[in-house]
Amino acid sequence: MSETSGKRILPSIEGPDDVKALKPAELPLLAQEIRELLIAVTSINGGHIGPNLGVVELTIALHRVFNSPKDPLVFDVAHQGYVHKLLTGRQGEGFSKIRKSGGYSGFLCQSESDHDSYGAGHAGTALSAALGMATARDLNGTDENVVAIIGDASLTCGITMEALNNIVPSTGKLIVILNDNEWSIARNVGAIPKFLAELITNPLYNRLHQDLQSFLKKIPRGDSLIQIGEKIGKEFKDLFVPSSLFEQLGLRYLGPIDGHDFDLLHKYLNFAKTSPESIILHIVTEKGHGYDVAVSQPERFHGVGPFDPKTGKGPPSKANTPPSYQNVFGEHLTRMARRDPDIVGITAAMPSGTGLNILKKKLPKQFFDVGIAEEHAVLFAAGLASKGKKPVVAIYSTFLQRAYDPIIHDVCLQNLPVKFCLDRAGLSPNDGPTHHGMFDLAYLRCVPNAVVMQPKDEDEQVDMLHTALHIPQPVFIRWPRGTAVGTPIKEKPVSLPMGKAEILREGNEIQFWALGPWVEDSLRLASILEENCGRSIGVVNARFVKPMDEELLCRQGKRASLIVTFEDHVLQGGFGSTVLECLNRHRISLAVERIGWPDQFIDHGSGVPELRKLNGLDDASLIDRIQAKILALDKKRLKVKG
Amino acid sequence: MSETSGKRILPSIEGPDDVKALKPAELPLLAQEIRELLIAVTSINGGHIGPNLGVVELTIALHRVFNSPKDPLVFDVAHQGYVHKLLTGRQGEGFSKIRKSGGYSGFLCQSESDHDSYGAGHAGTALSAALGMATARDLNGTDENVVAIIGDASLTCGITMEALNNIVPSTGKLIVILNDNEWSIARNVGAIPKFLAELITNPLYNRLHQDLQSFLKKIPRGDSLIQIGEKIGKEFKDLFVPSSLFEQLGLRYLGPIDGHDFDLLHKYLNFAKTSPESIILHIVTEKGHGYDVAVSQPERFHGVGPFDPKTGKGPPSKANTPPSYQNVFGEHLTRMARRDPDIVGITAAMPSGTGLNILKKKLPKQFFDVGIAEEHAVLFAAGLASKGKKPVVAIYSTFLQRAYDPIIHDVCLQNLPVKFCLDRAGLSPNDGPTHHGMFDLAYLRCVPNAVVMQPKDEDEQVDMLHTALHIPQPVFIRWPRGTAVGTPIKEKPVSLPMGKAEILREGNEIQFWALGPWVEDSLRLASILEENCGRSIGVVNARFVKPMDEELLCRQGKRASLIVTFEDHVLQGGFGSTVLECLNRHRISLAVERIGWPDQFIDHGSGVPELRKLNGLDDASLIDRIQAKILALDKKRLKVKG
Repeated sequence: MSETSGKRILPSIEGPDDVKALKPAELPLLAQEIRELLIAVTSINGGHIGPNLGVVELTIALHRVFNSPKDPLVFDVAHQGYVHKLLTGRQGEGFSKIRKSGGYSGFLCQSESDHDSYGAGHAGTALSAALGMATARDLNGTDENVVAIIGDASLTCGITMEALNNIVPSTGKLIVILNDNEWSIARNVGAIPKFLAELITNPLYNRLHQDLQSFLKKIPRGDSLIQIGEKIGKEFKDLFVPSSLFEQLGLRYLGPIDGHDFDLLHKYLNFAKTSPESIILHIVTEKGHGYDVAVSQPERFHGVGPFDPKTGKGPPSKANTPPSYQNVFGEHLTRMARRDPDIVGITAAMPSGTGLNILKKKLPKQFFDVGIAEEHAVLFAAGLASKGKKPVVAIYSTFLQRAYDPIIHDVCLQNLPVKFCLDRAGLSPNDGPTHHGMFDLAYLRCVPNAVVMQPKDEDEQVDMLHTALHIPQPVFIRWPRGTAVGTPIKEKPVSLPMGKAEILREGNEIQFWALGPWVEDSLRLASILEENCGRSIGVVNARFVKPMDEELLCRQGKRASLIVTFEDHVLQGGFGSTVLECLNRHRISLAVERIGWPDQFIDHGSGVPELRKLNGLDDASLIDRIQAKILALDKKRLKVKG
Repeated sequence: MSETSGKRILPSIEGPDDVKALKPAELPLLAQEIRELLIAVTSINGGHIGPNLGVVELTIALHRVFNSPKDPLVFDVAHQGYVHKLLTGRQGEGFSKIRKSGGYSGFLCQSESDHDSYGAGHAGTALSAALGMATARDLNGTDENVVAIIGDASLTCGITMEALNNIVPSTGKLIVILNDNEWSIARNVGAIPKFLAELITNPLYNRLHQDLQSFLKKIPRGDSLIQIGEKIGKEFKDLFVPSSLFEQLGLRYLGPIDGHDFDLLHKYLNFAKTSPESIILHIVTEKGHGYDVAVSQPERFHGVGPFDPKTGKGPPSKANTPPSYQNVFGEHLTRMARRDPDIVGITAAMPSGTGLNILKKKLPKQFFDVGIAEEHAVLFAAGLASKGKKPVVAIYSTFLQRAYDPIIHDVCLQNLPVKFCLDRAGLSPNDGPTHHGMFDLAYLRCVPNAVVMQPKDEDEQVDMLHTALHIPQPVFIRWPRGTAVGTPIKEKPVSLPMGKAEILREGNEIQFWALGPWVEDSLRLASILEENCGRSIGVVNARFVKPMDEELLCRQGKRASLIVTFEDHVLQGGFGSTVLECLNRHRISLAVERIGWPDQFIDHGSGVPELRKLNGLDDASLIDRIQAKILALDKKRLKVKG
């Protein structure tokens, strides 16, 4: 793919100054080198290849026109920040290991570079944050430019609309780059994306715009637009394309602009920089630009696992690999929805990630994608449930944080039978702290009327889905990212008794209470420890966090000397904390050892095993820890007896 | 005020059928009777008088044109639902005791009447919920009308914008009533309200609109608009006022319409009912209409305590009444902000309720009201903090649920020094479950980097505010609604040592750990119980929930036989739960009795004492409970010794 003649440019780029020093003719070469590297690295590591390929020219142009880090560039979601990383001193091993242990984050983080003016991993935050920075600048009386780079999908997200409503009252000058590729992760939905598409295709806008573009093309290279702009004054302003939606929100709109044309990008960005007012530049980019296999499969190549750079195909799936939790969910919900037309599935712009793409394909009338609008998704479900439908809302644990108020105020207070399926509960290793689902048990179990559960495997996952659909109140089911355990799924799901745990291994001295993936782990640990210490260890699959199986816990608690809890969640307010509360309520006193994640944000890493090990949650560490606990209890007992 | 001649109409209204049966000439009389009753009742009970006076004609017209409960009327926020209650069988004692124990709720609740198609107390939810109902209707193939009644302030709220983006993809027919009174609680802010104001005042819109109104006036009474509409077909449609914002979102817009003119309301509502497409009716109402003192003070009369119906004045404040927490906050933040220009205050449409109105008046440049946009408020603060400002975000505990994701993903993950001040933590008795702040400790203490505290009185509140501003990480301070304790406030606040509790009463057998208002209560209980049982009882003002004073707790835990925790929060995941976790972490075993609110939504009531008593949290119940606990421990000890 690469031109072998001539020196490579990218390795010489140590920061934005080097980008600025390039000759215009070198820019397409730089862009090509960046694309090659992006494809090479993500084909091994996986990553957000499509969005990054689309913003190569835009990111180069931003670094030529603006002065990062003095001028903060605030990228929304920040999964399109790979090019920005490469241009701000982050090449080499850190980049080749991106999203893996020891490599750079797949998102932007303030802790990684001063050029990352703001950290993000959730969509829709950039405009508000940039507005805060612009307001700080106004209050400080300094003169930096604040640039928010948002995707068109952000406009389906309420926060971005809240920010748009506040730009004019908050600051006189904010530069908004609307990077429009017509996709969020899936294709965008709703009225606002439709409006944007009309801006691009409407003949009136296009005619005006072509006039402006031919006008711009005539400007001699090197002259900045503003010099011309000052000369022609008002006339120039009249060339602006009127866009009622943005203009009525008080924002000067300019576009659409070809996001792969360096000349146009430089001119428009320079104009925005020197414009005395807030401005929105509508820049049209192509997701996957320059890489055919990504252009032709924009949803798959939004974020992807390893693939063959030539064909774009993923590695052949290994024989006997268990299915992923998300696919089991999608398939079995579709089965259930086929039998019961009241069942509807709702996603907030994540049909593939949640598995609901299967429902979308098979039963499109029972499927709703509301855009990046988690609050609306839950409220919409509440409305559906209040009229007898059975809505199943599929949102990752971390994104469900967005809908916390509707969960409390609309679903649980009104006790509406909305069902929530939380994927990515626990670690999302390559993504890191913005994507781990570490808080849901704490923030859900405190809410009255909520039922909260987690299956030990995919067969129980289907049983829980089946069970949830028959419980006349809000139910939350959480499961981890990725492949399930490999348990065969029964032909017909069964109803699980509400609030009842499952004894998987009999024992009486020590009881392990485990949740989700830890059930399998704790069975293994129990065998090893029983062997090592000669104690009788029971293992319970907790199933329910709320209501929890108080009867079984109390019965065991009265006889055992130690309970060990296991969860993929922070310990603060989590499952182990529920166990402590339950024992306290029943005035049962015994030693409890809680295994889970510490009170800190967990970085990204290559996989679950690496991150567990780093946090003392690997088998060896846990065996040491539990053995030490047993020993301490023995000493204490001897002391009491003595 | 009332016309004494003639029979009163209101008492004869048992439901919407009776409203429909009235002659047009009777409607103004009914409206007047309703206004008189609204003034009479709220002047005694307090309540949302302004919004309700504004929607008297609109609500009557809605019940004449639509068939509730078959046609769901979904009122946003629902504090403007008093008129709806009066027209749907809820007069009499329940209404005269509205917002008090035994009376109706101040909001709409599905549990109170079938006519309350949806419950609410937070703004911005109606459009999404109604969209769910309309979609359910489409899926069910039934023919009811779904009507969402939203305020103009809802359009500053992201959820409403998310819903607007989804109307066209989700349903072919939703009726949206935009009740525009130019106010949320304070005057609306931002670009969207400005756009609405222009719709009202723009001469072009007005001319078109006047044409339409004169056209409508000519239609003979009794003919439904649609019959005419069908006849004149396309011509009629052309009379629609074009409104780019709504029309570009795919919604047919009609307005502005005088919301106090029965004829116009009936005609437009009938047209919307029979229109084949989704439609937004822009209805202009006056907050407080028909009651001069409310019209002249719209912010104060949005929601008000008891007042003199003639003058509108509140009762004279009692001598020696302690100040409210909100005013202490507003005054002292203003003092601090005067000395430090980096301090800025941010509210989401609640300047008076939070106390920030004082900052707004004194230091307007350091004050930001972002509209009903809690997520944006927190993100905006994160942006400000990332550039060295010291943002203080004042949001009620219950509304902060809206900003949970920005709290985790933007403030705490990035460890930005944003300060959060949570009013209404604990009960908001007259408002009820939509407004109680019962979950914040659980949902905040699980988040890494968060510091969480609660003061025992207003002097400590100022110390905590002072302390928080010097802690370089996110800090959350919660306090209750209403009057503080009456402790004199020091001239100069002091810094509290991080994570340190305060011993207020020495004791060694039993330790009370109390949070916030319970500090005063637990001192009183300790005296009584020490007297009754002859035990030595210590009292600790916990101050910090995170990080908690582990050192003191462990020291006391090793010596005492019982710890009792007190909090205004649900017990699930709350302060007492933190104490259990801490003792567990340090392997300290002793009896812990946790006092707090049960795992259920607490209804509204006349005041804190009534609601505490109902939930076993009054002095007598607690004394019994703690004495019983002491007795049980004695028995156990004797048994062990025996």
